[in-house]
Amino acid sequence: MDYLSRQEQFQRTFRGERLDAFVVTHAANLRYLCGYTGSNGLLLVVGDRRTFFTDGRYSEQARQEVRGARVVIAKGSLLSEAVKRMPADRPLRLGFEADFTTVAAAGVMRNAVPKKVAVRATSGLVMRQRMIKDEDELRLIRMAVVLGAGVFEKALPSIHPGIPETEVAGDLEYEARQAGADGMSFETIVASGPRSALPHGRASAEPIPQRGFVVVDSGVILRGYCSDMTRTVHMGGVGRKERKWYEAVLEAQLAGIAAVKPGKKAAEVDKAARQVLRRAGLDRYFTHSTGHGVGLEIHEPPRLGKGQPEELQAGMVITIEPGIYVPGRGGIRIEDMVLVTANGCEVLTSVNKELVEI
Amino acid sequence: MDYLSRQEQFQRTFRGERLDAFVVTHAANLRYLCGYTGSNGLLLVVGDRRTFFTDGRYSEQARQEVRGARVVIAKGSLLSEAVKRMPADRPLRLGFEADFTTVAAAGVMRNAVPKKVAVRATSGLVMRQRMIKDEDELRLIRMAVVLGAGVFEKALPSIHPGIPETEVAGDLEYEARQAGADGMSFETIVASGPRSALPHGRASAEPIPQRGFVVVDSGVILRGYCSDMTRTVHMGGVGRKERKWYEAVLEAQLAGIAAVKPGKKAAEVDKAARQVLRRAGLDRYFTHSTGHGVGLEIHEPPRLGKGQPEELQAGMVITIEPGIYVPGRGGIRIEDMVLVTANGCEVLTSVNKELVEI
Repeated sequence: MDYLSRQEQFQRTFRGERLDAFVVTHAANLRYLCGYTGSNGLLLVVGDRRTFFTDGRYSEQARQEVRGARVVIAKGSLLSEAVKRMPADRPLRLGFEADFTTVAAAGVMRNAVPKKVAVRATSGLVMRQRMIKDEDELRLIRMAVVLGAGVFEKALPSIHPGIPETEVAGDLEYEARQAGADGMSFETIVASGPRSALPHGRASAEPIPQRGFVVVDSGVILRGYCSDMTRTVHMGGVGRKERKWYEAVLEAQLAGIAAVKPGKKAAEVDKAARQVLRRAGLDRYFTHSTGHGVGLEIHEPPRLGKGQPEELQAGMVITIEPGIYVPGRGGIRIEDMVLVTANGCEVLTSVNKELVEI
Repeated sequence: MDYLSRQEQFQRTFRGERLDAFVVTHAANLRYLCGYTGSNGLLLVVGDRRTFFTDGRYSEQARQEVRGARVVIAKGSLLSEAVKRMPADRPLRLGFEADFTTVAAAGVMRNAVPKKVAVRATSGLVMRQRMIKDEDELRLIRMAVVLGAGVFEKALPSIHPGIPETEVAGDLEYEARQAGADGMSFETIVASGPRSALPHGRASAEPIPQRGFVVVDSGVILRGYCSDMTRTVHMGGVGRKERKWYEAVLEAQLAGIAAVKPGKKAAEVDKAARQVLRRAGLDRYFTHSTGHGVGLEIHEPPRLGKGQPEELQAGMVITIEPGIYVPGRGGIRIEDMVLVTANGCEVLTSVNKELVEI
């Protein structure tokens, strides 16, 4: 990972925002900028002087991992310890991450900062940089996607009537660990029968039914990077109406993918998928947005939803995941990860999307 | 779960803080107060009128789960949607959770609130109530601890030289799922050989060595409640010095437990454990605090560290987990969960603590 280039790019960004210094506290941003994977860390950049703060639990780890910054072990609140040590002899404008700093923490920081330092809330400065993945990141994301797809395919045979949803999730997570994943990128969703109509139905103790849809939404973490995929299978023979539902969702997903290219607005991709479901009379059951960015975090910008003006750019990695949820009846979601390329896009997830009946 | 009693107690609490209304957004606090287990929810209490807000993804789930509050499905920021609907005709003082509300979110809220509503940052009001576990909670915590102990004992035989730490973690997590856990309460720590000197060394691809300590720190979640336990085993025959280290940590852990009773300060429990390690000349290697509260979250108040003035009370559930970390050599940690009772305490974790050589 080329941490120094990332740090230099970020310094140019905050200088462009008329800031002299910046304090980064969000874990994924710390990992991105300087390689630290622990919790409770802080990167203070004053001009181009970078200092990393953590507590005694992480002193070994910080020394092993942190690149491009001096490591300081502090006691107490890192925010107050860090800003206390800022130069007190000249006026400085210090940016902080308003999206990841609580009101309580900001209060502690404001009380500790030298008098000549002006504190300013900012939003998304590191995240905007992280939206465009560099080559090292793309390599890891590709590996995570392949691993995630493989464990789904390995776990698929464990789905049969009568076993609890949690056991399917457990099999999948076991395969992920065996295959070398750091862990899961979110709590595995296995939602079967009427529960498949819950868009975020985590695996429950309910048994897989004889008949009905089963939505499996899972992702792994590999060296920090997340994968995310969803497939929906059907237990027993599928009825005519349910097959139509499935085909409409798949068509919507393919339409979403076809709409992905640089310069397109996020909302246009969402619209492309939603229109297919509208024509099928199913759009009222599509209750979430079409996708989201993925990287060090499972949900990153851009959000591919109604009215989102963000323009897609080459190097973004997003999900395309339309779904329908018919209360009391069942639900279907199909999700791939997609890389925005110079001319269009590349679907990273390579797993069958035709309807499987079990 | 007696959600209504919890809601009424909380209403008394915020009225005691001279507030007329309160907005709760922290997920664990929402689960505690009204049973909601999804993400992106909000509970607005104005006097004794309770309204729960979430978005379209969770409409089914909210209707199934939320107790004691009317459910409203909102679009956009829940904080702004909720406060917009507050009565605008009279002055009201609205509390919010400063520890769980970002500066960005607080800004959105302040912009949306009716003019006569005064917004005030508060800290720990729900958490203080959650520190004392009620009977329903204690039942679930006991079950989680038993489940967590069982999966540790089942996974123990998988520890042998040459297999990757991640595989030990995977076995343990698989057992947890098979046994009906919702998931793990944190990323399982399996840190072997010199890596055992990292207090928070998540399982890595490194193989378990022929000789050296292996720290296994794991916990499960059962119906929302967390367990947390650590045992340290030794690969190969243990040397004399290493045995002394282990015995010192165990003695410190027992001294910590012996110090737990209502009215004792958290710092006194920490001191009791730390003194044992000081007498053994090992306290400089004990780089964290002695324990923490556990419940719906894996880390809750009280914190059992130096200088912590919090007094223990019956009904608190805490960990006692001293450890030493000798850089380059190895580490040892022993952790139980403990319930503070009327007269002392009850150790909930029932797993052998004598040194096991593998």
